[in-house]
Amino acid sequence: MVRTATAQVITARQVLDQWQGHRRLTRRVIAAFPEKELFEFSIGGMRSFALMAEEMIKMSGPGVKGLATGIWEKLEWREQTYKTKDELLKAWDDTTETIEEIWNKIPPYRFQDNDLAFGEYEGPLYGTLLYFIDNEVHHRGQGYVYLRALGIEPPAFWMR
Amino acid sequence: MVRTATAQVITARQVLDQWQGHRRLTRRVIAAFPEKELFEFSIGGMRSFALMAEEMIKMSGPGVKGLATGIWEKLEWREQTYKTKDELLKAWDDTTETIEEIWNKIPPYRFQDNDLAFGEYEGPLYGTLLYFIDNEVHHRGQGYVYLRALGIEPPAFWMR
Repeated sequence: MVRTATAQVITARQVLDQWQGHRRLTRRVIAAFPEKELFEFSIGGMRSFALMAEEMIKMSGPGVKGLATGIWEKLEWREQTYKTKDELLKAWDDTTETIEEIWNKIPPYRFQDNDLAFGEYEGPLYGTLLYFIDNEVHHRGQGYVYLRALGIEPPAFWMR
Repeated sequence: MVRTATAQVITARQVLDQWQGHRRLTRRVIAAFPEKELFEFSIGGMRSFALMAEEMIKMSGPGVKGLATGIWEKLEWREQTYKTKDELLKAWDDTTETIEEIWNKIPPYRFQDNDLAFGEYEGPLYGTLLYFIDNEVHHRGQGYVYLRALGIEPPAFWMR
């Protein structure tokens, strides 16, 4: 049925609320790590959770600007910018504000536009946006394993 | 701006395609585990990846039926149903077909309806649906850590 295929599933405001809910949970996961383990603990040669969180920060703030304007900053993956938990949480909170401010400036038609996001990733922008969120959920799930391996109870997944 | 708040972000068909893309990736993660480790390997007292995948199966098929009909089966968390990788992959593929078949029977207005999903979880159904997907991404991320800890290269996250 065509009706279901083109049905509205979720509004832009609802997507934002979902994402900010995820971001509140991810913040709690960052905060649950002891300082040292946040930057040093790893399993199977993977990145520290600090580096994963830094990737989320560097993708999300500039990403939302790209959604709104079509101007994509170059992603700065390689350098580690945040060296303490406080710096990381501060950057996290700044990004939360950036997302909240810029969101309403995204022209409605943009979600169905195609862009070369960050000059590298071609696709419809709803997919780009979902990638930001899915990437966060994916790596946060990995942070849960790190916390469990460290004997720390992670925050409840359903609590947003 | 109200325009952005109520903008269409993604159609029902696009949500389905995103989800089935995730499901293809999760299937590759299940398949990447050796038989024994799929059912026995664990970090920090967590569940095996087989049990996580079983949860996804039991949530998704009956979940999509609930979205379409408002009839929610009781979730059967506790019993382990699938005992081999083949059984698990077979159930996975059956669920993929179930989702594909039932999706187009979801009345368009349902995504914005409220239900008591599985008789337990109250909320708008777009949120319930996103919970199915997020829960899969979350646990699949944990499966990636298990694979890395086992010295196995997981499938690429962006390959759907």
